[in-house]
Amino acid sequence: MQNEVDYLKVVGRVRASDLILKKRSGSALSEAELNYLIDGYVQGAVPDYQMSAMAMAIYFMGMTEEEALFLTLAMVNSGDTISLEVIPGARADKHSTGGVGDTTTLVLAPLVAAAGVPVAKLSGRGLGHTGGTLDKLESIPGFQTDLSAAELIAAVKNIGVAVAGQTANLVPADKMLYALRDVTATVDSIPLIAASIMSKKLAAGPGSLVLDVKCGSGAFLKELEQAYSLARLMCGIGNGAGLETIALITSMDQPLGRAVGNALEVEEAILTLRGEGPPDLEELCLALGGWMLCLSKKVSDPEAGKDILKALIADGTALEKFRELIANQQGNAAVTEDPGLLPRAEKQVTVKAVKDGFVVGLKAEQIGNAVMALGAGRETRDSSIDPAAGIVLEKKIGDRVKKGEPIAVIHAGHASSSELVYSVENQIISAYEFEDRPCGKQQLVLGLVDQKGR
Amino acid sequence: MQNEVDYLKVVGRVRASDLILKKRSGSALSEAELNYLIDGYVQGAVPDYQMSAMAMAIYFMGMTEEEALFLTLAMVNSGDTISLEVIPGARADKHSTGGVGDTTTLVLAPLVAAAGVPVAKLSGRGLGHTGGTLDKLESIPGFQTDLSAAELIAAVKNIGVAVAGQTANLVPADKMLYALRDVTATVDSIPLIAASIMSKKLAAGPGSLVLDVKCGSGAFLKELEQAYSLARLMCGIGNGAGLETIALITSMDQPLGRAVGNALEVEEAILTLRGEGPPDLEELCLALGGWMLCLSKKVSDPEAGKDILKALIADGTALEKFRELIANQQGNAAVTEDPGLLPRAEKQVTVKAVKDGFVVGLKAEQIGNAVMALGAGRETRDSSIDPAAGIVLEKKIGDRVKKGEPIAVIHAGHASSSELVYSVENQIISAYEFEDRPCGKQQLVLGLVDQKGR
Repeated sequence: MQNEVDYLKVVGRVRASDLILKKRSGSALSEAELNYLIDGYVQGAVPDYQMSAMAMAIYFMGMTEEEALFLTLAMVNSGDTISLEVIPGARADKHSTGGVGDTTTLVLAPLVAAAGVPVAKLSGRGLGHTGGTLDKLESIPGFQTDLSAAELIAAVKNIGVAVAGQTANLVPADKMLYALRDVTATVDSIPLIAASIMSKKLAAGPGSLVLDVKCGSGAFLKELEQAYSLARLMCGIGNGAGLETIALITSMDQPLGRAVGNALEVEEAILTLRGEGPPDLEELCLALGGWMLCLSKKVSDPEAGKDILKALIADGTALEKFRELIANQQGNAAVTEDPGLLPRAEKQVTVKAVKDGFVVGLKAEQIGNAVMALGAGRETRDSSIDPAAGIVLEKKIGDRVKKGEPIAVIHAGHASSSELVYSVENQIISAYEFEDRPCGKQQLVLGLVDQKGR
Repeated sequence: MQNEVDYLKVVGRVRASDLILKKRSGSALSEAELNYLIDGYVQGAVPDYQMSAMAMAIYFMGMTEEEALFLTLAMVNSGDTISLEVIPGARADKHSTGGVGDTTTLVLAPLVAAAGVPVAKLSGRGLGHTGGTLDKLESIPGFQTDLSAAELIAAVKNIGVAVAGQTANLVPADKMLYALRDVTATVDSIPLIAASIMSKKLAAGPGSLVLDVKCGSGAFLKELEQAYSLARLMCGIGNGAGLETIALITSMDQPLGRAVGNALEVEEAILTLRGEGPPDLEELCLALGGWMLCLSKKVSDPEAGKDILKALIADGTALEKFRELIANQQGNAAVTEDPGLLPRAEKQVTVKAVKDGFVVGLKAEQIGNAVMALGAGRETRDSSIDPAAGIVLEKKIGDRVKKGEPIAVIHAGHASSSELVYSVENQIISAYEFEDRPCGKQQLVLGLVDQKGR
């Protein structure tokens, strides 16, 4: 196929407009055509205006699994890749499609490493309600995330875990394409999302991958069917590219855990590693972590993996690994004993229930927007974030609440006006839905897509 | 509505990406939104990459008639408009969506003017199998098409007819948008085609408009249903904007007339104005011309208009008007008596039938491509054209042919290689389909969409 591309390039017979036409009419693009398109885009031969028309055609016509795999591989090949083979052992990785209060990476990196599976986690900062994993970790005084590839490898060889920002020129095609999709209403295309996520994962060279595909009102994908489509496609791409990949579909109808904010989530991760975290966060970490151990061949099934992880929490090994991780990256590891050393917001405002009842709904997106308004997240790439700002939810779906009882605590910075705090308070109150009777138990893990795409 | 635009601009709340999302989800854009989009595009605030994504979203989701009207008016307002009200009488105009061998404008401009209806025709050069109307007229020795607006108006006041190129800055939004659509596989969107055609017509300020929407294998639109959609939408836009507009849907399954080429079509127009032209070309000119007289209130129904036009052909008035038109634009009017004064190709090669039979098919697109290969048309804006090159079809659908009898004559320039001529010969032979029995009569005018859009 590569020969075909070269031939077509030499004779100048490929025109991007013909490829757009082909996709627009519903045909699948070939490996050679997708290589031409992505190479041309990164090198400037295919201009933005053709790529945005192509993205819109893909939005409407979709892609086959094979096409999405070829697109992903073309994107991987657009830049550097990291070779982590020098690290002994089966390196585990995970990725979440993003929700509100998703503290799982902070818990899973030390927890899985404590089980003897190396975790070399490359994370981003990203845009969203809170910062990304890097921002959360940087709320720990002194914590450094800008490791070189050599430092990352040394850290993982040394203590089994490191979390760092990307320094290499990984997947430039994705950076360009994502920026373009963001301003052309072509972000929410399942194959483009899958190629974006999987290209970055493949370029970072893990040994296996567990995906957490969020579904529900607080997630990007609202419908279970869409979540399954994305999960199946990403598993198809990963396994098709030789990376053992599975996905859990998990509920994001209410925020995960109780804390939403950067330092607040670090504190919650510490609690969870101590066995004192919110039940839903612990359940999800065990489910994802069990699969990470299973794919790393540490155990033969994910349930056995969960048992190992529970024991590591119970005997303090997991928290000790987090201490090691923090110390190894120049952070103040004493936060694991005294979370009061983390940045703390000047104002703490308790939000109280205005009536009796059972919580039957807690709109995740609305809580996320309120946290964003408090300054915990980034609206643009250049926004600065307040590490201490956020919201702690005292009540979640299923809980009984009496009028006047605290339902949440707002953590607001000194600069936050009382109008802002008042508005956030109202947002929180209206995010809660109460009924006279409790609703049924909320299922957290909604489904699994395994290596066979089933 | 205009206030809404201004307000939105001031507060900076309109984002092109939101408008793309709105269209992508199938909603109709408002007048204010379309004005913002087109103004922004022409002024550079909306970049090409957003406009191409929008064009692709319009391709998939379509537009309501109201939306298409607002888009058209926004495009008209992007540049200058020509005011022809100073010309006394009801100015008639016509537009064809383009086919192979479409000589109607060359016949209709003098013919309708001969009936006392002023014709101020602004034409283009365009890309295609042959040049545009301007190129065809410029094959007459000395003929000048670059008239200023004042010269155009003076010519129409003086002799009732002028055909000129556009000098004013008419519809810059269309120029930009068309160039973008051409390279992003978004040309063949019915609402975008309709807005492109109608914006140029409205900006040129005619009194009424007769559209010739071609349909069939040699036309842009292959299916009758598509042709009706485009015709109804253009009539809706025209009449919605206050320009009385009707459309005929006409067959383009075989080339119109016998000549395909620039000077060859001028010669055919002269023959037709003499009453000696091919029956199908005459029939279509009378049908379109009858409606032009009717919309100009010269007659109360198109059939009465046809009778007037037939009489003007029969008594020589029509040809005399063509003579006047040519002389008034510095051309050699003697061509009307002696078409031998037109440029003539060095080589004329007769193509002969390889078997007996009746012509039941004559692939228009294939003939067009053969004429293009001979150098009669433009592949890019900078291509030069050979005015003498082309093909004359001696046999058309329904004709009986004996083996060895001429079916066509190739007019090729000195520089044409014998390989080229041989290849054109084969293209012509394979464009003809023969059967033992004649097929039924081909209908030329397939339908009408009137001012009410019916």
